Amino acid sequence: MTNATPQRILVIHGPNLNLLGKRDPTLYGSETLEQINARLAAIGHDLGFDVVCKQSNIEGDIVELVHSARGAFGGIVINPAGYSHTSVVIRDALLAVGIPAVEVHLSNLYAREEFRRVSLTGAVTRGVVSGFKSGSYEWGLRALIQIIEGK
Amino acid sequence: MTNATPQRILVIHGPNLNLLGKRDPTLYGSETLEQINARLAAIGHDLGFDVVCKQSNIEGDIVELVHSARGAFGGIVINPAGYSHTSVVIRDALLAVGIPAVEVHLSNLYAREEFRRVSLTGAVTRGVVSGFKSGSYEWGLRALIQIIEGK
Amino acid sequence: MTNATPQRILVIHGPNLNLLGKRDPTLYGSETLEQINARLAAIGHDLGFDVVCKQSNIEGDIVELVHSARGAFGGIVINPAGYSHTSVVIRDALLAVGIPAVEVHLSNLYAREEFRRVSLTGAVTRGVVSGFKSGSYEWGLRALIQIIEGK
Amino acid sequence: MTNATPQRILVIHGPNLNLLGKRDPTLYGSETLEQINARLAAIGHDLGFDVVCKQSNIEGDIVELVHSARGAFGGIVINPAGYSHTSVVIRDALLAVGIPAVEVHLSNLYAREEFRRVSLTGAVTRGVVSGFKSGSYEWGLRALIQIIEGK
Amino acid sequence: MTNATPQRILVIHGPNLNLLGKRDPTLYGSETLEQINARLAAIGHDLGFDVVCKQSNIEGDIVELVHSARGAFGGIVINPAGYSHTSVVIRDALLAVGIPAVEVHLSNLYAREEFRRVSLTGAVTRGVVSGFKSGSYEWGLRALIQIIEGK
Amino acid sequence: MTNATPQRILVIHGPNLNLLGKRDPTLYGSETLEQINARLAAIGHDLGFDVVCKQSNIEGDIVELVHSARGAFGGIVINPAGYSHTSVVIRDALLAVGIPAVEVHLSNLYAREEFRRVSLTGAVTRGVVSGFKSGSYEWGLRALIQIIEGK
Amino acid sequence: MTNATPQRILVIHGPNLNLLGKRDPTLYGSETLEQINARLAAIGHDLGFDVVCKQSNIEGDIVELVHSARGAFGGIVINPAGYSHTSVVIRDALLAVGIPAVEVHLSNLYAREEFRRVSLTGAVTRGVVSGFKSGSYEWGLRALIQIIEGK
Amino acid sequence: MTNATPQRILVIHGPNLNLLGKRDPTLYGSETLEQINARLAAIGHDLGFDVVCKQSNIEGDIVELVHSARGAFGGIVINPAGYSHTSVVIRDALLAVGIPAVEVHLSNLYAREEFRRVSLTGAVTRGVVSGFKSGSYEWGLRALIQIIEGK
Amino acid sequence: MTNATPQRILVIHGPNLNLLGKRDPTLYGSETLEQINARLAAIGHDLGFDVVCKQSNIEGDIVELVHSARGAFGGIVINPAGYSHTSVVIRDALLAVGIPAVEVHLSNLYAREEFRRVSLTGAVTRGVVSGFKSGSYEWGLRALIQIIEGK
Amino acid sequence: MTNATPQRILVIHGPNLNLLGKRDPTLYGSETLEQINARLAAIGHDLGFDVVCKQSNIEGDIVELVHSARGAFGGIVINPAGYSHTSVVIRDALLAVGIPAVEVHLSNLYAREEFRRVSLTGAVTRGVVSGFKSGSYEWGLRALIQIIEGK
Amino acid sequence: MTNATPQRILVIHGPNLNLLGKRDPTLYGSETLEQINARLAAIGHDLGFDVVCKQSNIEGDIVELVHSARGAFGGIVINPAGYSHTSVVIRDALLAVGIPAVEVHLSNLYAREEFRRVSLTGAVTRGVVSGFKSGSYEWGLRALIQIIEGK
Amino acid sequence: MTNATPQRILVIHGPNLNLLGKRDPTLYGSETLEQINARLAAIGHDLGFDVVCKQSNIEGDIVELVHSARGAFGGIVINPAGYSHTSVVIRDALLAVGIPAVEVHLSNLYAREEFRRVSLTGAVTRGVVSGFKSGSYEWGLRALIQIIEGK
Repeated sequence: MTNATPQRILVIHGPNLNLLGKRDPTLYGSETLEQINARLAAIGHDLGFDVVCKQSNIEGDIVELVHSARGAFGGIVINPAGYSHTSVVIRDALLAVGIPAVEVHLSNLYAREEFRRVSLTGAVTRGVVSGFKSGSYEWGLRALIQIIEGK
Repeated sequence: MTNATPQRILVIHGPNLNLLGKRDPTLYGSETLEQINARLAAIGHDLGFDVVCKQSNIEGDIVELVHSARGAFGGIVINPAGYSHTSVVIRDALLAVGIPAVEVHLSNLYAREEFRRVSLTGAVTRGVVSGFKSGSYEWGLRALIQIIEGK
Repeated sequence: MTNATPQRILVIHGPNLNLLGKRDPTLYGSETLEQINARLAAIGHDLGFDVVCKQSNIEGDIVELVHSARGAFGGIVINPAGYSHTSVVIRDALLAVGIPAVEVHLSNLYAREEFRRVSLTGAVTRGVVSGFKSGSYEWGLRALIQIIEGK
Repeated sequence: MTNATPQRILVIHGPNLNLLGKRDPTLYGSETLEQINARLAAIGHDLGFDVVCKQSNIEGDIVELVHSARGAFGGIVINPAGYSHTSVVIRDALLAVGIPAVEVHLSNLYAREEFRRVSLTGAVTRGVVSGFKSGSYEWGLRALIQIIEGK
Repeated sequence: MTNATPQRILVIHGPNLNLLGKRDPTLYGSETLEQINARLAAIGHDLGFDVVCKQSNIEGDIVELVHSARGAFGGIVINPAGYSHTSVVIRDALLAVGIPAVEVHLSNLYAREEFRRVSLTGAVTRGVVSGFKSGSYEWGLRALIQIIEGK
Repeated sequence: MTNATPQRILVIHGPNLNLLGKRDPTLYGSETLEQINARLAAIGHDLGFDVVCKQSNIEGDIVELVHSARGAFGGIVINPAGYSHTSVVIRDALLAVGIPAVEVHLSNLYAREEFRRVSLTGAVTRGVVSGFKSGSYEWGLRALIQIIEGK
Repeated sequence: MTNATPQRILVIHGPNLNLLGKRDPTLYGSETLEQINARLAAIGHDLGFDVVCKQSNIEGDIVELVHSARGAFGGIVINPAGYSHTSVVIRDALLAVGIPAVEVHLSNLYAREEFRRVSLTGAVTRGVVSGFKSGSYEWGLRALIQIIEGK
Repeated sequence: MTNATPQRILVIHGPNLNLLGKRDPTLYGSETLEQINARLAAIGHDLGFDVVCKQSNIEGDIVELVHSARGAFGGIVINPAGYSHTSVVIRDALLAVGIPAVEVHLSNLYAREEFRRVSLTGAVTRGVVSGFKSGSYEWGLRALIQIIEGK
Repeated sequence: MTNATPQRILVIHGPNLNLLGKRDPTLYGSETLEQINARLAAIGHDLGFDVVCKQSNIEGDIVELVHSARGAFGGIVINPAGYSHTSVVIRDALLAVGIPAVEVHLSNLYAREEFRRVSLTGAVTRGVVSGFKSGSYEWGLRALIQIIEGK
Repeated sequence: MTNATPQRILVIHGPNLNLLGKRDPTLYGSETLEQINARLAAIGHDLGFDVVCKQSNIEGDIVELVHSARGAFGGIVINPAGYSHTSVVIRDALLAVGIPAVEVHLSNLYAREEFRRVSLTGAVTRGVVSGFKSGSYEWGLRALIQIIEGK
Repeated sequence: MTNATPQRILVIHGPNLNLLGKRDPTLYGSETLEQINARLAAIGHDLGFDVVCKQSNIEGDIVELVHSARGAFGGIVINPAGYSHTSVVIRDALLAVGIPAVEVHLSNLYAREEFRRVSLTGAVTRGVVSGFKSGSYEWGLRALIQIIEGK
Repeated sequence: MTNATPQRILVIHGPNLNLLGKRDPTLYGSETLEQINARLAAIGHDLGFDVVCKQSNIEGDIVELVHSARGAFGGIVINPAGYSHTSVVIRDALLAVGIPAVEVHLSNLYAREEFRRVSLTGAVTRGVVSGFKSGSYEWGLRALIQIIEGK
């Protein structure tokens, strides 16, 4: 895998995250997706990275977003939300493109239902941050940048 | 969640239901989707409700159909078909919009394969009607209207 | 199996349902069993059916109630309550008499404890209605009548 | 446990067996319970044993039938039917009275549903005969007599 | 739930306990049920409580005994014996009446067969005492009285 | 499958049965295999049947013994012993030849180790007799003859 | 289902297969999807069949591709990739259209992760070829043609 | 095992119990460990027993406390708290010293998380008392004394 | 592993396959083993390979057949039939000889009983073809030859 | 829970972490524990927090370290290492003290052995960071401080 | 069981062990079976024992080898290899002959695939030695001799 | 890992082993720990090795004993006793120090309770010896020395 464009990072928001700020704030926090995206762009900018954010509710679209990162982005921050637990195909996509990826979750998966115990996708990323609401994105992004910069 | 438009009901038909009437009639009955939709519209009309019907084979589209009901519909009748057993994301969507929903199934899930035993989506609706072929839609719609009217 | 008396329907209430209206109303609703029985009789009457209601807390008595329907009733609405999940013998009874049956539950089984996930009895009925409190009986009865009338 | 009356044998028919001859004959055979009882009495008579037959659909009644055998019968032939797979209490009753017992089943349990794979009750009898329709009773009775006579 | 008659306690003995003193004494002790009942009555009397004892082998009867305690007894000591592990309906009955209940077992359930590992009924009582043979009843009764008296 | 030679019955003794009479007599009885074979031949003779007995410790040999019955025997009594629980191939052989077969076991499988709970082979025979030591063979043979004679 | 156009075959490539030739060649081989498609077209041509190839990463699109085969194609070669293990809806689609289908996999599923052990979709096809990298397509296509030609 | 010092009883409090009175009082009660110890000493004193209380958060220390009871104490009351469900080594220690022991729990284990369903340690004690908050200690101690005194 | 004799291929037919053509043709097809062998020999001949076919019902013999391929054959086509699901030893043999092997099955394993879901042996071959009746052998042989020729 | 000393943070390193920098660097990184502690102290200092670091290999000691934080620290960063998957008692300790805690892991748990899939301890913390080697501590500390400051 | 010939020991090598020295030497070592046999004979000779070695790939033959030890050998060293995990019949044979036996394995079973976790056969031997390649035989033989000599 | 001091071996005795000779001798033998240590020292001395023996009941102490072997011992003989089945942390310690280790058990784990079936620690040692009472230590030590000496 080539790292031709390490200074660009793709943030992929999975299903239902377009509703952020409107769902149960105890679990997911009160920021909207736009606010999170702005915050991530600002952090990226400070650290010398372009941060591009996409959202999709469709599993196959997320597969294609992951594919699109090949040769165009230096890393991926992904929140596959409910697909984390069931999607063999996003897992396969992450493996196929081979770009450093970090998985983030708004809520703490270990504290939720049994069926959220496994993360098929998280297993093929470099690391997983979960439970800090929108903060998970911030720490996930910072961790990814640290990995890309080889620190 | 506001119930600004309680007199409108969204019916969501999940995957493969566009083939209705052409699949194994012992299991699924012989009515087509158009016939079912017409019947539901008529029942709704009699009871003072607009019934809007949509069909999609794509999990993420169904997530978005559910999202679209926020502030626009008073309730949802959903037949997630095969997605009932695996879709964390439709479940999360139903939870996120918080509109009263009823799940319906043409066939009797308890009498089928092991993997149809769990309904991740049905667990977050008000009730589930299964086994009465197209009748499941009728009873599900009537039950939903009774819930909306607070009877 | 002969259907000599299709115009009579037997409603079987299983264990603890004699306490209805006194148990947790959030889960089970606030109607008493007598009120439900009266409502079912009225619906039946409107549709040209005699509705006979019985309640028992004893598994074997319910088996015998099911047996008693042979040749005397055109269909059965049954709420086996807690026995749904464990009773091989009520299942065998329903299979043995071969009369159309519909299973109903006040609460939504998919949303409750793990041990309520399976319905041994529901698997051998035509369909299952669950979650609409006393409404489940109404929709179950109407669905059964539609089946008997071959609509 | 005393064996004061070894020449008397109690046959206990469990739930739904009163319908015998009317249920699916492929699985259960076409003889009625009365015919089976007569046949067992005749076999017993030939071998010098009184055979007393009882049927009940009620788990607790079967417990009491088992209890009643203490000091009054030399052995028990029991077909717990659907209770075989779930009844800890009939199992405990059989253990408590300590009289030689043989379990019989009309159908071949190994060839049926997964939930009929375990026999809690059969595990505490001397042996199990299953699959020979009414013949299972004959061979079970003959086997029990051979055990009682210490052959 | 009203506590109009807190000074009366209902003791419910489940299946096979009528044989007490005659079954394996290593496991269950050598006292008869009558001796246990007398002992419990005496302890109750000393502490200012009427103790009423009932035994039944029938699951549904035990459900009705539990129901009968509503408004008539201040607490229940129950030994559901073999039904502990399988009875959803006794569990539901205990939940429905909402009177303080304590579960007792003669033998130590943790030291026995795998299928005695779960107590569906014990899970909805205040506490469980097991393993002390007839002593389990004594400590269960004393514990219940302490709960009723709010100590 | 033709039943050209119904008057001949093949008895197949599986692994370790050559040691009969020398192994734990509590579990397996004290008769030797020769004594059992003689007894089965005598019973067969009385009922007009030739009984041929074979023993093998080798799974594949037992498959071939089953094959050899096609067109040559009217029925099979088989004790697959330890292979009952693991042998897909003897199961497939019994299915392939399609001759009526009865499975017998010296000990009561329901009362033994967990891994003896399933009988892959018994599931494809007409019935199973277990627990009566050498008596299991007698009752199995008699049951098979009754099946062959269509009684 | 009519076989009006048996001489046309639809090849459906599932998720991530658009990356073929760029992913781990040890597992998936080094041919691109275009090369595979060309090879399949050539083989089809030699045998008198038109081979039409489609790829999609979206589960619901694959459902619709399967639907599109009704009345238009004589058979389907499908590689559902990661969806094989989780997609009830593609399974339902294959059942609904009832056209002969063959499932193919580049890698040997039996030799991979536990979660690739089940193929919900393969269970409703005529046969499955896996492990031969792009060769799996060739053998799957040839096998399908043999089935269509009724050889 | 010698019972040289039956009049002394060792009470072992497991991990986190030093915080008693400060943790969630609904679950654990509001008494402190010192108050419980004083109460147990008083009860012991009344019945002619010295009660010595120890607390440790360390699994291996509890093993050694159990060892220390050999030849020095007539019985053990133990609350292994969270170690009950996982500690093979405390179980082995209880078995090794062979002194009568009783297990107590403040909360009702049957009513809590799945992972508290098994008690490896309780399985090797004489009996288990759970759910009565600090009362569990009282009844456990009284039950143990009754056992030691052979009543 | 040396490939000294790549132009020879060993075909191993496992248990019950000697009955081919006589067993259930819906599942297994109507060709006999001799016909299949002739067809494979012809295909091999066309492609420049000697094809040697063996059949055995004995697990250990199949192990030895696999061993015999070392240094003598360039590849193995194996249908372990019922042994596929249980035989650790054939798996170990295939691993030990290290010759390219392909597993074939007449029926579609994914569509059959639960216990046919795993293939211990298939997991150590290059690929698996199942479901095409005798065709599975043809495609398996052709695939193997393609592997040997390094295409 | 009082937050009297929010400006102090306790970092608890669990078992084997004293070897850091000497174990498999691919999995755990090459920094030593001292280096990590220094880095955390520096980060804390920059943000106005005192960071105190402790290490223990003993489960019960870690319980006591957690207890020691009550009233003395505003938050806990904990890496329970191997205890995460088995320790009910550290979980109970974290629940008992009720101070905000964050769990960190050097390696990505989702990508390791099956027995590392569950985190009993992580389930009762605010969030979990895993996979970034020593970076996990940094992001966990920063996330905790953000929680304490209520941002 | 008589120990008439304690000075002779039977070593049984199970399936695939004839290939020893030719299979993966990392796992199994580089000695051939002949070398191992010679080494065992020499050790036996030094200690005053005749060591007879047999190898078979056939499960039933191994059963018969075990049988042959009755009255002829004082002990058995057995490496059932792949049969360890599946063979009920070798287990039954070892139980039936009742001669002291020791199980050995070249590789460390605990470190291999899940399906090698259980040893049905090892469970009925005196002890198991695994992981020391050919050394496992040496230590197993020495341990067996120590047992026979009653040291 | 350096092997600077190969001539020294650390023997670690886990929990409850300090009671050796006083626990159930059928299972564990009658030698005391001191006797075993003396025997191991003597064997080591004969072979040119210093053998140092330690015992601890505390999991974390055992972790530290394992750590202490780095650079100081050439190998470890460890009997983790009850910790074998649950201790992820001792496993991690053994992996971290990377010194050759051998696991020993007094009793035959395969013949005991289900929860002793897995050895988390044994899986990361070179080999496991179990069932020979104190002999297990002898053979484990001799095997370890053979490994260290590279024989």
